Amino acid sequence: MNQAQFPRPKIVVIGAGFGGMAAVKALAGCDADITLVDRTNHHLFQPLLYQVATAVLSPADIATASRVLLRDQKNAQVLMSEVVGVDADRQRVHLAEGEDLPYDHLVLATGAAYSFFGHDEWAKHTQVLKTLDDALAIRTHLLAAFEQAEQSNDADTVRRLLTFVVIGAGPTGVELAGTIAELARTTLAKDFKHIDPRMARVVLCESGDRVLKAFPEKLSAYAKGALERLGIDVLLDQPVSEIDATGLKVGDLRIDTGNILWCAGTAARPAAGWVGAEAASNGAIKVLPDCSVPGRPEVFAIGDVSRFEDVSAVPLPSLAAVAKQQGAYVGHLLKARIAGAAAPAAFRYNDLGTMAVIGRAHAITHLGRLDLTGFIAWLAWSLVHLMLLVDFRSRLMVYVNWSWAWFTRGRGARLLAAAPVSPAIVARKLPGHP
Amino acid sequence: MNQAQFPRPKIVVIGAGFGGMAAVKALAGCDADITLVDRTNHHLFQPLLYQVATAVLSPADIATASRVLLRDQKNAQVLMSEVVGVDADRQRVHLAEGEDLPYDHLVLATGAAYSFFGHDEWAKHTQVLKTLDDALAIRTHLLAAFEQAEQSNDADTVRRLLTFVVIGAGPTGVELAGTIAELARTTLAKDFKHIDPRMARVVLCESGDRVLKAFPEKLSAYAKGALERLGIDVLLDQPVSEIDATGLKVGDLRIDTGNILWCAGTAARPAAGWVGAEAASNGAIKVLPDCSVPGRPEVFAIGDVSRFEDVSAVPLPSLAAVAKQQGAYVGHLLKARIAGAAAPAAFRYNDLGTMAVIGRAHAITHLGRLDLTGFIAWLAWSLVHLMLLVDFRSRLMVYVNWSWAWFTRGRGARLLAAAPVSPAIVARKLPGHP
Repeated sequence: MNQAQFPRPKIVVIGAGFGGMAAVKALAGCDADITLVDRTNHHLFQPLLYQVATAVLSPADIATASRVLLRDQKNAQVLMSEVVGVDADRQRVHLAEGEDLPYDHLVLATGAAYSFFGHDEWAKHTQVLKTLDDALAIRTHLLAAFEQAEQSNDADTVRRLLTFVVIGAGPTGVELAGTIAELARTTLAKDFKHIDPRMARVVLCESGDRVLKAFPEKLSAYAKGALERLGIDVLLDQPVSEIDATGLKVGDLRIDTGNILWCAGTAARPAAGWVGAEAASNGAIKVLPDCSVPGRPEVFAIGDVSRFEDVSAVPLPSLAAVAKQQGAYVGHLLKARIAGAAAPAAFRYNDLGTMAVIGRAHAITHLGRLDLTGFIAWLAWSLVHLMLLVDFRSRLMVYVNWSWAWFTRGRGARLLAAAPVSPAIVARKLPGHP
Repeated sequence: MNQAQFPRPKIVVIGAGFGGMAAVKALAGCDADITLVDRTNHHLFQPLLYQVATAVLSPADIATASRVLLRDQKNAQVLMSEVVGVDADRQRVHLAEGEDLPYDHLVLATGAAYSFFGHDEWAKHTQVLKTLDDALAIRTHLLAAFEQAEQSNDADTVRRLLTFVVIGAGPTGVELAGTIAELARTTLAKDFKHIDPRMARVVLCESGDRVLKAFPEKLSAYAKGALERLGIDVLLDQPVSEIDATGLKVGDLRIDTGNILWCAGTAARPAAGWVGAEAASNGAIKVLPDCSVPGRPEVFAIGDVSRFEDVSAVPLPSLAAVAKQQGAYVGHLLKARIAGAAAPAAFRYNDLGTMAVIGRAHAITHLGRLDLTGFIAWLAWSLVHLMLLVDFRSRLMVYVNWSWAWFTRGRGARLLAAAPVSPAIVARKLPGHP
C-alpha cells in the first residue's frame, strides 16, 4: 500500500463501457490511482449485441474481462461492484455493499437504459437489449417461440407465436428486425416438421416518418426497401398506444403477439441526481465544453449519460465513437491537470461517420459526403466492426462465426437450456407423423 | 400427415445425448416415424463440459441444436419437452405438458445424474457438472470467488474464498481440478492488485486409494504426480463425512470453503421405475444382451441409464463410446425388426480405449496394450476429441479457442453478468492503492 507523505490523487471511473474504458486507458502513466467500477466484470462491444440475441455470436465473442484489458496498466485497479450513489460534497462514491470509495476526480460513464415514455408497465411485456443477460433472454425467447409453435395444433396460437414486433427503427431496431427475419427465413427454414418458419411475421414499428432518421433521407429510403425485401412489415408514422401480455396496438392496428422487442427510447442512467447536476429531458447530465459538470470541476460525465451540445446547440448523438473520444479527452485532461500542465482546448467530436446493417449482406454507411448502400456498405461495416473489436481474440472468433453464418446461413448459438413451458400451447400435435 | 391404411410404426427415443442421437441416426431410412424427445434443444458434447465451467470454451462451442443434426433425416422429428413417466402397458410416454406420446418401440437414453450417497442435503452446498447451465453456474461461482477475494481485507475470508475442493477423482474431477489450478496459476495470475491468485488452494479428494481408478495403476500414479506438479493437494483414501455451508470434512481434515464441486457418484435417471424394470444399485436398468428390458422386447435402455453386463458379469463403463455403440446397435436392430429381417447378434462393446486429461499439456491414454502419458497422450486426447465433436463448426471453434488458450494461457469466456453479492465480504479494502 502506498502511504507516501503526498498521497497520489484518486480517480474513480464508473462504467466499463466505451467511455469509461477509454478514460482509464488514456490515464496510463498518470501519477494517480485509478479505480474502474462496473457492476459486471467485462467490457462489452454493444454494437454487436443484437447478434448474440439472434444466436449468431456467443457472449464471449463480444465481451472481454476488464481486468484483461487493464492487466498491464499499473496505476489502475478494477472493482466489480454496483454504485448506488455519490456524495459529491464529501467526494465519495457509495457502493451497494462495503465501504465508500473516496475520489479526487470522478468520471461518470454509466450510459443509458431503456425508457418507456411514462409507460413503465410496458417493461414487463417487452424485451430490451442492453446487457449480455438481455441478449441471452431474447435468444431464449425467440428460439422457444419456434419450439412452442411446432407443438401447437391451433393456427391462431402458431400465428401469435411466430409474430415478432420490433418497436423503434433506430440502428438496434433495424438490425434486430433484419436478423430475426433471416433467422426465420433461412437458418430455421428447414428444421421443423409441423410449422414453416418462413411464415413468421416480423413487424418493425416506428413513430416517426422514416427508418434510421439519423441518416440522410436517401439512405433511410434504401434501408426501408432492403427491410421490405427481407419480408419485414415496416410501419411508419405509427405510434404504439397499448402493450399488454397478449399483444400491442400500433396506430389503429392491433397485433397479437408475445414477442415484443423495445428499441424505441433510451434515458440516461440516474447519475445526474447523484451529483445534483442539471439534466436534459432524457436524464442526461448537461456538461460544459470540457465534459465537466457545471459547478463541479472535479466531476466529468461522458457518453450516453451526458448531454454535450456543439456550438449550434445540437446534442452529440448516442454513439460509441462519441463516448470513446470523450473518454480519451477526459483522460488526457486529467493527466495534464495532475501534472500541472495546461488544460487542453474544449472537447470536439471528430465525426468519422455512421453505419447501420440490414440483414446478411446489406448496410448503409454515411461517411462525410460519401454515402454507401448495399453489399459494399456491408463490407465496410464488417471491416470497421472487426477492427473496433477490442482484442485480437474477439476479432478472430467473430470472423470465424461470421464466415460460418455467411456460408452456411446457420447459427452456431441456437441453445435452449430447458423445455419452454407456456400457456400458449393449447394443444399438442399427435406425434408420429413428421 | 401420413394417414395410410397401415400406419408406420412409431419409435420414441428419450434423450438427445450420445446414445439417443446415435439410435436416431442409425434409424435413417427406416420405414418408421421417429420422435426424439429431450428437455433441451441441443446435443451436448459432455466430455468437454468442464472447459465451459472453467471459461475456456463457450456453450455454443460444444452444443448443437438437435434439429440441425437431424435436419436431413426425413423420418425423424424433434420434440423439446420433459418426459415425466411411461405407461409401458399402454405404450405411451407422459410429457410434462400436452398429450401423451404413443409408441410401438421405445428407446430410453436418459443418462445419469449426480448421486450424493444418501446425503441429499449436500446438494445445496455443492455444484455438479451435467448440463450447460451447471457449467455456467460453476464458471460464475469460480470467477466471483476471485472478485470477492479481491475486495476482502480479511485473510481468513480470502483463504476460504480461494480454496476449491473437488470431490471424486474420476475423469471429470481430475479434469476440473487441473483446469481450476491452471486458471488460478496462469490465466488470472496477474489480473488482481490485492490478492495473488496463485495462492489459491485446489484440493482433490478421493475415497479410493488412487485417482482415475478405471485406468491401470501405472497411469493413475502418473496422473497423481501430474496433478501435484500443478500444485493440487491430492487426498486419497479420504471419504467425505460432512458438507455444509461453510466447508466440509474429509477424513479427519476440516476444510473451510464455499467452493465444493461434486464429481463423486452418479445414479441413473429414474427410467427403471417408468417401465417397471429391475434396477441395479445405482438405479440403472439391467438389460438383456440385445439392450432390451426383460419382459418388454419393445423397450430398450442404452448408455448411463442401463446396466449391461458382459460375459464375465462386469458392467460396461459409463462412457460416451458405450452409449454411442449401444445407440447404433439398437437403431440397426429396430431397422431389421421393422423390415422383417433377422435380428443382429447380441451387442458387443468395442473398446477403443480411454483417456483423461490433466491440465494444459498432460494426459493419460489407455488404448489396448498401449499406455501413453504426458504431452504425446495430450496430443492424442486433443485429436480424438476434436474428431469426435459433432459437426465441423464445433471443431473449428474449439480448435481456435484451444489455440488461443494454449498460446496465451488466457481464457476467452471469463464473463460475470452482475456484481457478486456475498456475506463473505466482511470488509472492503480502501481503494486507491493498487
